Amino acid sequence: MKLYYAPGTCAVGVWIAMAWADADVSAVRVDYSDPAYKKINPLGLVPAVDIGGARPMTELAAILDYLSERYADKDLGADDSIEDRFLYNETKSFLSSDFHPAFGAVFGPSRFTMATDDEAVEKVKKAGYIKVDGVMTHLNDHIIGDNEHIYKNKKTFLDAVAYVMVRWSRFTPKSWEQYPNIQRFMAMMDADESVQKIIQESEKE
Amino acid sequence: MKLYYAPGTCAVGVWIAMAWADADVSAVRVDYSDPAYKKINPLGLVPAVDIGGARPMTELAAILDYLSERYADKDLGADDSIEDRFLYNETKSFLSSDFHPAFGAVFGPSRFTMATDDEAVEKVKKAGYIKVDGVMTHLNDHIIGDNEHIYKNKKTFLDAVAYVMVRWSRFTPKSWEQYPNIQRFMAMMDADESVQKIIQESEKE
Ligand SMILES: N[C@@H](CCC(=O)N[C@@H](CS)C(=O)NCC(=O)O)C(=O)O
Ligand SMILES: N[C@@H](CCC(=O)N[C@@H](CS)C(=O)NCC(=O)O)C(=O)O
Repeated sequence: MKLYYAPGTCAVGVWIAMAWADADVSAVRVDYSDPAYKKINPLGLVPAVDIGGARPMTELAAILDYLSERYADKDLGADDSIEDRFLYNETKSFLSSDFHPAFGAVFGPSRFTMATDDEAVEKVKKAGYIKVDGVMTHLNDHIIGDNEHIYKNKKTFLDAVAYVMVRWSRFTPKSWEQYPNIQRFMAMMDADESVQKIIQESEKE
Repeated sequence: MKLYYAPGTCAVGVWIAMAWADADVSAVRVDYSDPAYKKINPLGLVPAVDIGGARPMTELAAILDYLSERYADKDLGADDSIEDRFLYNETKSFLSSDFHPAFGAVFGPSRFTMATDDEAVEKVKKAGYIKVDGVMTHLNDHIIGDNEHIYKNKKTFLDAVAYVMVRWSRFTPKSWEQYPNIQRFMAMMDADESVQKIIQESEKE
């Protein structure tokens, strides 16, 4: 399986998920702003995964579901009841469709306004900080009791992708250290050897 | 099952999906901007679905997966191979995590900037139009050949939610009529009796 990634992106979370599943993966660093990458993903986004089909497959949430099914023996997905799957899928969808997009205006504020002056762009970025605080607060409330995981208190693929995305909060005025439950989760993840190895590897030139 | 919806939102797509599945649903119209609704969904978003658990469940993509599993006999989800599920999930995730968020700045431009003057807010909305055209173009390219459906050429829950979201494009300068494959899909959906019935019912006071 071939994973297309860029450093610091959610695709690195997919890489961690694949490592946890002991998947045979070759990770290919790409420049998603290069028009040539549109041949891999017409939306110009990472992650994309080549599983040997007619074209590489995309979308974080879909890739995680594929991993859950293909590496079911590793038990890194939902627990086995319809309600448990609903809970897992709810969190997965929150991460990909609310949490992730909330950072859009922080990383690419100029795409959110036709104005080109620095002041206007800065005002978009600041509005992004408010959105990010909203989703960080929700994620923090979501990790209940003394839990150290994103889904119940079970190690799952969701931990891998949440970890990478939560790290983006350091580019806002309120970094993850200021959300106590998230901080506990992050400390657990920082101590994981696969996480350390892949973060390091993904940042190599 | 209880569905919390507001007119014109993606929750109406869920309602159509439920009707197709012959689900026993009571639809409850809510005002998601009312702080009281935060008790149903702390994020203040629709859809939410009460399936009799400790709290209502949320997230469009997760609700669709729940319907696919619970009403599996209706065959309104993915075809049955790991690659087919990947394709279905990819499109589902595109709809909820790229397509849907692209409209954010069109419907709520003032949430995307700290600026309060009309001109600045209008510039945010216009940038939103560009994003929407990007995802509409991708969706249009996604409906291949003479297909009339969003997933392969099969009627699925994805048609129901895509339909409602595509209708939002009429609030941009380039409405869905201008994307030929989407137009074919919309014509098929407009002719569906359940669709007509629920759109009408959802708009009643
Ligand atoms: N809905 C997509 C979003 C993917 C996405 O936005 N990826 C980011 C990196 S984390 C990206 O490629 N950004 C490049 C860009 O926005 O130009 C998914 O869930 O895979
Ligand atoms: N990620 C959520 C997004 C839901 C969402 O944004 N719903 C819209 C209606 S289509 C909403 O409730 N908007 C209210 C608001 O933004 O205040 C999902 O997939 O369910």
